[in-house]
Amino acid sequence: MKEINKDTSIVFIGAGNLATNLAKALHAKGFKIEQIYSRTEESASVLASFVGARWTTDLNSVAGGKDLYIVSLKDDAFLELLARIVEGREDALFVHTAGSVSMDVWKGKVNRYGVFYPLQTFSKQREVVFDQIPIFIEAADKQDKELLKGIASLLTQKVYTATSDQRKSLHLAAVFACNFANHMYVLAAELLEKNNLQFDVLLPLIDETAHKVHSLSPKEAQTGPAVRYDEQVIYKHLVMLEDEPAMRDLYRIVSQSIHIQSNSKK
Amino acid sequence: MKEINKDTSIVFIGAGNLATNLAKALHAKGFKIEQIYSRTEESASVLASFVGARWTTDLNSVAGGKDLYIVSLKDDAFLELLARIVEGREDALFVHTAGSVSMDVWKGKVNRYGVFYPLQTFSKQREVVFDQIPIFIEAADKQDKELLKGIASLLTQKVYTATSDQRKSLHLAAVFACNFANHMYVLAAELLEKNNLQFDVLLPLIDETAHKVHSLSPKEAQTGPAVRYDEQVIYKHLVMLEDEPAMRDLYRIVSQSIHIQSNSKK
Repeated sequence: MKEINKDTSIVFIGAGNLATNLAKALHAKGFKIEQIYSRTEESASVLASFVGARWTTDLNSVAGGKDLYIVSLKDDAFLELLARIVEGREDALFVHTAGSVSMDVWKGKVNRYGVFYPLQTFSKQREVVFDQIPIFIEAADKQDKELLKGIASLLTQKVYTATSDQRKSLHLAAVFACNFANHMYVLAAELLEKNNLQFDVLLPLIDETAHKVHSLSPKEAQTGPAVRYDEQVIYKHLVMLEDEPAMRDLYRIVSQSIHIQSNSKK
Repeated sequence: MKEINKDTSIVFIGAGNLATNLAKALHAKGFKIEQIYSRTEESASVLASFVGARWTTDLNSVAGGKDLYIVSLKDDAFLELLARIVEGREDALFVHTAGSVSMDVWKGKVNRYGVFYPLQTFSKQREVVFDQIPIFIEAADKQDKELLKGIASLLTQKVYTATSDQRKSLHLAAVFACNFANHMYVLAAELLEKNNLQFDVLLPLIDETAHKVHSLSPKEAQTGPAVRYDEQVIYKHLVMLEDEPAMRDLYRIVSQSIHIQSNSKK
């Protein structure tokens, strides 16, 4: 695999949200997706049909001799299956896509290895455009690093290298900025539903909240009762949440955290 | 004030984030902003200069005989100043812009009153386009309600009526969807800064997280370690946050809340 071309043959180990979006994006750029492995037949077959690949639910049937194996599994499954994934394929290039797993997990198991980490939230039901998604590359070997950067560059304008420690920080930050932020939408939706109000009315607010931090720092962008320490409003909200003790605790803790942050340096 | 026209004379009581954006938007549509009152000279004078109005820091100097008084103050200041705001102006139309204050606060104080509540996050440093912002109207009198809806309709396509209770629910939901979501960005930014990483790399993720809930429900849109209950990752993250007990507690509580929600009905 000296150069990046349409004959680069790729095998996906895993067919979850990330694998689905990444395989589709690579396929759309002309890469040959040879095979999809997943523990569940439906995931494997659905993704395989999208990208014109073969599929299997049996690790022993994963094709050997391909150029690139992209492993995209839940962390515990990955570590459990690692030895069997590389078996008999020790000379191929292996990458995983996990934010929280060190590159060194491959060390001593295969000769050529790295990490291919797109920083994005992926769902199977929603195809994303890769163009602006940052992809963070790590590789043991310099040539492999260039090769992975080359592949990433075909997908996005934003290709970076990152150490395993940097990637772990990025992943943790992403959990806050994405998963936790989205959970705040979930709770908001629940509150509205209970009062027969449509979630849609929040969309311009959610959009503006996201847009704001393109031009202001998140601290500068903050508004609302907690940052201006409007005790009247905070008290009223806690009363409104009386029947929802978990949500009330969360309201109190997050408001407190906002208040502390707003008093620290900008 | 029988019809809405450019001669409708408006006085703003308050010159904060919301008042600033609303006054500018009304001014841009041709309304005559007569005067700005604020307790602080800088806020009053800066906004007044933007919209070609007079300004004062003395409630006794607020002009009488104008058509519409828009009161946009912190809740406690509003309640404290209410009697003085209306004094001698009992026949004008008064509205407040607070999500959490009942319309009835005006009852017995003035004859014509209501609420004009734009559901958005406003900062002085950032001018927003009102076009898609939902504005929720409430008024004691039917004619005044139509009049306020008419004014709102000149600013946005999304004009609704809402009772005080509905508005309170909207406001609480907005605190979660906006202020709390933004606070998750704040914490993410802090984590990245500590590791010398740029906040900018999170922007495509933040944008996609917001866009996703236009087509998926927030519950369907959720991804990450908490929703798939990836204990390995959650444990690693808690270890990474060992030096940040407040953030670690928040991580644990929000992850738990995500996990509970994901097991409840969609």
